[in-house]
Amino acid sequence: MLVEDVRSDIPLLEDHVYLDAASTTPTPLPVVRAMEEYFLSYNANTGRGAYSLLVRATERLNEARSKVAGFINASADEIIFTKNTSEAINIVAGGLRFRRGDSVVVPNIEHHSNFLPWLRLRKMGVDVRVVRADETGVVDPSVIEDAVDDTTRLVTVTHISNALGSVQEVEEIGSIAHEHGALYLVDAAQSIGHMEVDVKGIGADFAAFPGHKGTMGPVGTGFLYCNRECIDELEPFSLGGGTVLDVSEDEYVLEEFPARFEAGTLNIAGFIGLGASIDYMNRIGIGRIEKHTIKLTEKLYSELSSIDRLECYGDPQNIYGILSFNIDNMDPHDVAKLLDETAGICVRSGHHCAIPAIKHLGLHEMGGTVRASIHYYNTEEEIELLAETLNEISLLGV
Amino acid sequence: MLVEDVRSDIPLLEDHVYLDAASTTPTPLPVVRAMEEYFLSYNANTGRGAYSLLVRATERLNEARSKVAGFINASADEIIFTKNTSEAINIVAGGLRFRRGDSVVVPNIEHHSNFLPWLRLRKMGVDVRVVRADETGVVDPSVIEDAVDDTTRLVTVTHISNALGSVQEVEEIGSIAHEHGALYLVDAAQSIGHMEVDVKGIGADFAAFPGHKGTMGPVGTGFLYCNRECIDELEPFSLGGGTVLDVSEDEYVLEEFPARFEAGTLNIAGFIGLGASIDYMNRIGIGRIEKHTIKLTEKLYSELSSIDRLECYGDPQNIYGILSFNIDNMDPHDVAKLLDETAGICVRSGHHCAIPAIKHLGLHEMGGTVRASIHYYNTEEEIELLAETLNEISLLGV
Repeated sequence: MLVEDVRSDIPLLEDHVYLDAASTTPTPLPVVRAMEEYFLSYNANTGRGAYSLLVRATERLNEARSKVAGFINASADEIIFTKNTSEAINIVAGGLRFRRGDSVVVPNIEHHSNFLPWLRLRKMGVDVRVVRADETGVVDPSVIEDAVDDTTRLVTVTHISNALGSVQEVEEIGSIAHEHGALYLVDAAQSIGHMEVDVKGIGADFAAFPGHKGTMGPVGTGFLYCNRECIDELEPFSLGGGTVLDVSEDEYVLEEFPARFEAGTLNIAGFIGLGASIDYMNRIGIGRIEKHTIKLTEKLYSELSSIDRLECYGDPQNIYGILSFNIDNMDPHDVAKLLDETAGICVRSGHHCAIPAIKHLGLHEMGGTVRASIHYYNTEEEIELLAETLNEISLLGV
Repeated sequence: MLVEDVRSDIPLLEDHVYLDAASTTPTPLPVVRAMEEYFLSYNANTGRGAYSLLVRATERLNEARSKVAGFINASADEIIFTKNTSEAINIVAGGLRFRRGDSVVVPNIEHHSNFLPWLRLRKMGVDVRVVRADETGVVDPSVIEDAVDDTTRLVTVTHISNALGSVQEVEEIGSIAHEHGALYLVDAAQSIGHMEVDVKGIGADFAAFPGHKGTMGPVGTGFLYCNRECIDELEPFSLGGGTVLDVSEDEYVLEEFPARFEAGTLNIAGFIGLGASIDYMNRIGIGRIEKHTIKLTEKLYSELSSIDRLECYGDPQNIYGILSFNIDNMDPHDVAKLLDETAGICVRSGHHCAIPAIKHLGLHEMGGTVRASIHYYNTEEEIELLAETLNEISLLGV
């Protein structure tokens, strides 16, 4: 599928320049139609039961799980469906039986979702070691190496920083974790759907994913990959319908993995939509998405960095799909608002749920950054419009 | 709105007799359209940010929260959006800081979602007191009274049993809890949307709700009511984007309630759909739903109980919207399958995620029950068709 084919599946692109993929992506028509088909034709709960609507819903949900698994080189029985990336990470943080004295290594450029769940473990006596990225938002594997030791239960890192777009050396960091016998979690919120993510290739024991960002699935979906060999490390902290095989008044027997982690009615429509979005990704081709993203990221950086009074963050050689910037002394929210009002351009502004990263860059006082983030549906013309409009805005106060 | 108006909004009723409302309900067209509008016109993430699509999505999400709150006589700032009822209950079970020696009182007829989260507290030294319903699935308030004492931190009960349809004396049980200084949680999974649920009238400190059952909202939605006075009792166990005001490398400051409990991107489309479903409920009128449900429940019991070789469970004077039954020696799944194959009738079969309740009724060996559950879209003719078809099935082996 070409860029124009995808654009014709996303009606809101007709009057909006959507540059906020890092937050969420618009959902293309075939994905919306797949959900609509569920709601109108076979809206039933999944699980055990005999009637045909239910069986159909269950089969479609299972198909979605297989599609998602295939997309990251995993098996269907290694995928826990969650409501978002945060839930996926919290399942790991709350499910590993940490002991006093265990250590966890986490960079300071993480999204809050991959920072707070670890920070709170300090209350339990876990030694949470926050390591620092460099000034471009890259975590040098050597700082991980320095922080890891025999007490380290888990090392985690984001694949791509949501605040800066910096790509991390996830394979090398994984090797360091494993050399010390630590588990390894990758936050793939900003890479999935934007580049090939092979969980086995990365060497992740756990990886957390959104359904609604790069894969263009609906909001309300996410998933956790858990390597089969690590299944017994995790204990579910949320129980309910579908999580047990048997219950008495005294005890219960947990269901197999992943069912034991999926308490209650799932977002069946959403995951069927996610399955359709994986089909959609495969129709575009992840290689084509990567090529487009590299080209547009380069253009984004080169056009914006040439504007006087505008400062870009991150290393142009090592950002992917995301660019954070500021215009001298202007509040990021004001810039975002002007871009929207002037040219219908949608960009995020603020701290991007990554306050430690923003503080690390010394940008907390000024209110964070303006962040443009792209996907396959974006065009060179849109980047040019962004640059022209930013140039005009930068001249407003002069 | 009349029954036929609602039926015309649910296309799948044309060729299915949908008698599984206790599991989930089909989603009417105006609700599907509200979600579609989000996906196609203003698909953006909510929260802080400046551009207009985002502002619109945020406003619509806030409106949905207000609608949901109004529907149960609560304030918007007493509502935590969850993915389902199970998550709502687990937020309470995992969020109350239980201490060794605290006791919890829970009936044996609960859905697993309101049973397992309490049972697992035993590992922490909490005295979990399982009290027994009578043979019709009703919990006599006096057995609660007997079980509660000064160590009791929380009393919980389902409003209507999902396995049997038995209606519990939720107000009286709430009074008993409060007389002993205990907190009170009501599982309203089977009452919301089927009858008026007034959380203040019931005296609930917490109440857990699905969005996708009686209210006819989409799967992937639920919510927790938390009385404003009990907000400080709960601690979030899932952290991420949107849950904090500030973060350093050493500590964090939680957001206000309810944001601190809503980590990550919400199912924005789903909650906007839920808001539309509350509008839809209000257009029908809960009084009209109650009248219809009482009439159809009576007919359901009277028609089915007159079939030879068919046994109905529960007290006909005290079931609401749900009827569990079995045909002599027939596996419940076989009955459900035959109903579907013969007449397109959708009913649930099995243990209904309430194994202790099924064991209590002595029905575990035979595989649970067949369960018919109704809503406003069901008709007398459908009940008659169910009865006729069951009569035929009951004669198959004779």
